[in-house]
Amino acid sequence: MKRTNYAGLIDESYEGQTVTLDGWVQKRRDLGGLIFIDLRDREGIVQLAFSDEISKEALTVAESIRSEYVIEVQGVVKARTAGAENENLHSGKIEVQVTQVEVLAEAKTTPFLIEDGVDASDETRLKYRYLDLRRPEMQENLRVRSKITAATHEFLDQAGFIDIETPYLAKSTPEGARDYLVPSRIYPGSFYALPQSPQLFKQLLMGAGFDRYYQVARAFRDEDLRGDRQPEFTQLDIETSFMNQDEIRELVGEWVKAIMQKTVNYDLDPTTIPVLTWEESMRRFGTDKPDMRFDMELQDLSDMMADSAFGVFSNAIANGGMVKAIVVPGGAEKYSRKEIDKLGKYVERFGAKGLAWLKITDEGITGPIAKFLTEQADALLETTKAQAGDLILFAADQANVVNPTLDALRRMTAQTMDLIDDQKWAFAWIIDWPLFEYQPEEDRWIAAHHPFTMPNEADLPLMATTEGAHQAHAQSYDLVLNGYELGSGSIRIHRMDIQQQMLSALGFTPESAQEAFGFLLEGMEYGFPPMGGIALGLDRLAMILAGRDNIRDVIAFPKNSKATEPMTDAPTLVSKAQIETDLGLTAPEYADTDAPNMAEE
Amino acid sequence: MKRTNYAGLIDESYEGQTVTLDGWVQKRRDLGGLIFIDLRDREGIVQLAFSDEISKEALTVAESIRSEYVIEVQGVVKARTAGAENENLHSGKIEVQVTQVEVLAEAKTTPFLIEDGVDASDETRLKYRYLDLRRPEMQENLRVRSKITAATHEFLDQAGFIDIETPYLAKSTPEGARDYLVPSRIYPGSFYALPQSPQLFKQLLMGAGFDRYYQVARAFRDEDLRGDRQPEFTQLDIETSFMNQDEIRELVGEWVKAIMQKTVNYDLDPTTIPVLTWEESMRRFGTDKPDMRFDMELQDLSDMMADSAFGVFSNAIANGGMVKAIVVPGGAEKYSRKEIDKLGKYVERFGAKGLAWLKITDEGITGPIAKFLTEQADALLETTKAQAGDLILFAADQANVVNPTLDALRRMTAQTMDLIDDQKWAFAWIIDWPLFEYQPEEDRWIAAHHPFTMPNEADLPLMATTEGAHQAHAQSYDLVLNGYELGSGSIRIHRMDIQQQMLSALGFTPESAQEAFGFLLEGMEYGFPPMGGIALGLDRLAMILAGRDNIRDVIAFPKNSKATEPMTDAPTLVSKAQIETDLGLTAPEYADTDAPNMAEE
Repeated sequence: MKRTNYAGLIDESYEGQTVTLDGWVQKRRDLGGLIFIDLRDREGIVQLAFSDEISKEALTVAESIRSEYVIEVQGVVKARTAGAENENLHSGKIEVQVTQVEVLAEAKTTPFLIEDGVDASDETRLKYRYLDLRRPEMQENLRVRSKITAATHEFLDQAGFIDIETPYLAKSTPEGARDYLVPSRIYPGSFYALPQSPQLFKQLLMGAGFDRYYQVARAFRDEDLRGDRQPEFTQLDIETSFMNQDEIRELVGEWVKAIMQKTVNYDLDPTTIPVLTWEESMRRFGTDKPDMRFDMELQDLSDMMADSAFGVFSNAIANGGMVKAIVVPGGAEKYSRKEIDKLGKYVERFGAKGLAWLKITDEGITGPIAKFLTEQADALLETTKAQAGDLILFAADQANVVNPTLDALRRMTAQTMDLIDDQKWAFAWIIDWPLFEYQPEEDRWIAAHHPFTMPNEADLPLMATTEGAHQAHAQSYDLVLNGYELGSGSIRIHRMDIQQQMLSALGFTPESAQEAFGFLLEGMEYGFPPMGGIALGLDRLAMILAGRDNIRDVIAFPKNSKATEPMTDAPTLVSKAQIETDLGLTAPEYADTDAPNMAEE
Repeated sequence: MKRTNYAGLIDESYEGQTVTLDGWVQKRRDLGGLIFIDLRDREGIVQLAFSDEISKEALTVAESIRSEYVIEVQGVVKARTAGAENENLHSGKIEVQVTQVEVLAEAKTTPFLIEDGVDASDETRLKYRYLDLRRPEMQENLRVRSKITAATHEFLDQAGFIDIETPYLAKSTPEGARDYLVPSRIYPGSFYALPQSPQLFKQLLMGAGFDRYYQVARAFRDEDLRGDRQPEFTQLDIETSFMNQDEIRELVGEWVKAIMQKTVNYDLDPTTIPVLTWEESMRRFGTDKPDMRFDMELQDLSDMMADSAFGVFSNAIANGGMVKAIVVPGGAEKYSRKEIDKLGKYVERFGAKGLAWLKITDEGITGPIAKFLTEQADALLETTKAQAGDLILFAADQANVVNPTLDALRRMTAQTMDLIDDQKWAFAWIIDWPLFEYQPEEDRWIAAHHPFTMPNEADLPLMATTEGAHQAHAQSYDLVLNGYELGSGSIRIHRMDIQQQMLSALGFTPESAQEAFGFLLEGMEYGFPPMGGIALGLDRLAMILAGRDNIRDVIAFPKNSKATEPMTDAPTLVSKAQIETDLGLTAPEYADTDAPNMAEE
């Protein structure tokens, strides 16, 4: 026998045909002398029928078949008897009456059912990942991802981009996150680093004149894991020469259009993607990755509240801070005082000291602080356009507290009030980022994107001093979708003098700059073209387009939150000899004992 | 200004048009008041003309321009004056008369000229790789490679394959080459391994029901480097379910056809690719990767020579060995006794103890051993079809000496005699490999392909014992092109009982098998489908199709023969703190000192 069709594609148009199918047994119903089996393959399910009349032999085999057995069957496609149709199934009008069946592999009872909405723990799903991936929704997730990469290769190849691979055994560089290191056997004590991105290599490829480069590249970061981070992740990496940022955004827009077409069949007009400066995005949404599927923009009430009788407001402004607010439409009823207290508790993580609020009634403003704001009440209602039944939430503090507080409240309350249209794709470009940002924990200035980002033309004179450089803005552009950062791009520095100013403003000495990036600085002396590009997070894009909220669902074999892989138990202990003799390193005592595998802790 | 065209694509069809071009200065000729610049971009070269009449300002700028400067020019395409045309250039009939020019970046004198056939050392080329890659032949090499991957993605996507990424931070497994290890920071003393291939992951993906998987995957081997090996390399990895090896070979044939079409514009009929068993290939060519662009097949003369008066021959056969020969057409004159001695010296590396030979004249056989073979002379000439002027080279020993000796002689002499057609693409499938091969150095039997290769159906009973298993043959198929192994494929074991027999015959105990491959064995208990696939070496394929003989020429940033990367100096020393505090390992003393960088040794 030899498969003629995918089981899941059989329908009434095949009626009367003899087909040979391969797949897994989804379930079996034994009605005594009549057995139905749902056969599953990657395209879906078809019902098989076994009976004495069709084939006594096949029926006998079918009696021994259990769920998840792998079988091969031959049979004739027939209409189901009236009333037995299944509207929800592509193959719901027919069944395959099986004349021959062979069991290709038996199966034990699986630890969880192979169906959507599994209730197994994440750890169990990862341990039996090959079973988890059999579930139709997981099959679909990885197919969406594959459609994205296929469409990407097609689009960029057509657009004249050259697919070039850069090394994974690379050099450890400062800046950025912690590197994964790979010990060298030939030079004990020396290490390769797994790259955090192909950034420097792609700039060198522009220096080499390839003009248009791309790569679907793995990147690695040995960071403490949280949320949707993975130790290894995939980025679509693009670099071009002689293009300005408008041209690059236009190109990326065309790529996005192609992707949206081929994965979710959505017709995007990339010229309609709003372009916001970073300052505007912070002002209107309190974040650099605004979810623009809904309104509820932040309103700056600083001028209005400067002289208000409510000390929290007037003091914040007197101290150089601000007062901003969001209006939650219809939120007055939904949010009890207790619920509002919960929100107030939540935003403490952003440094907010309490949460001021007002509810709007037909009579005007109410709530504990209403009495302090009688003078501002009319202006407040006019400016915020708040209506009876609405809730206003305020934040009054420095900008770095006010903005993240209201950003979080905006997203949380919109979710609660069901104001977010799940069917909407809201893209945005955020441009003109600060070149540097201050890192309070480390008390130093770091590159907001990376140390190779070109300052705005007008800000080049600022680069002459460290203090000036920290105030400069960059030729940078992030692509945002539904509140997620999809990708981050910039025009790069192609001149050594500016690159040296940048590294100096980051705290590098000429010597340490030379040690870390000497090859790049030297390269720039041999004629590097103006260049720019972008890196897009493929995992996250796949997650959003597949309609998932966990990045692990679009990665075949992801790591768990402890950076281990429960199926293979990686990382594992290796022999002391391998570490000491081969690599010249000394391992902890327990590395050669029968200690329990660390990955299972 | 904004680029309107690639410089290298301008030709006489653009005459009269104003164009804006960006690129590098290939060379400048200053004729006094008239300057010509060859402007180079990735598509080629165009001549720029500067003069007082065209633009005084542009001429002044041009006077300061040197080689490898990056410039942007605007000008009008004009026919060259009669006699100044260059037939060898796509743009040879025209020049661009420049009205505006801007220097985008200056350049120092490069350490070697940016042109084909560079005579810089390999090390210099790698150190200034961004300059080496500017050379047209290197640009072309990487574009051939990119065409291969683009055509691969297109073909496999069309054929229903799903592009799935597998982890690079994986589990160290025994068997195969030495792993590159990555220390875990969360579990000090534990290590990830960079995968030597995605083999196990792709089998698990078949277990998960994806049916058709592919990936352009990086693979890593920490081996002693030689010839065309690199620490990291790229393979096109393919796996399918429910297909037999004929079907898989047919599919791969269609892929090869698409690649040959799109890269070298060659129309391959994959049904004409010869299929040889491993035994036949060894018999006829002495190798499992025969170069079939030319004949000169090995001829087995054992029967003829069993009773010959030449003791070397008759003894070899008496000791269970063989006598084989190749005929070098026209080789009698080309190869002096001294030249033949050199060949004899060369094949000592294969264990050959001397090289017997005959020359054919109109009178018959001549040479030192002719007198011992008078009885066999007629039969020899008839069997070998040797003609006057030919040279016959013999090897008489055990098969594992005779075959590699004559394989090497066949290829060397064919090269010398210029019998190899460089324009030919000679593919072959080598099937039915031994399942195991004996490794004399380690005195053990190893898997000829890998431990997951399915034995031939008829050999399954042999698997019950270790001795039997070592005699089995496999459902395996290698694709060969012009004497290079392009890829290696097999049907995989999908049944746990056979997999356990295989691991047992490799010397695994049930416990060590469980520790190494427990997740795979467990997976097989949940219904794994019959499956098979292939891994194709992308670097080597690109090398052959680009017409190169060094794999580094098709890799953007390769490692040198010491596994270091001279441009960035990777691997490098990292701080003691990083090794000790982060990773819990102890580094050699010099790791935190100012020791010279190990990579420069």
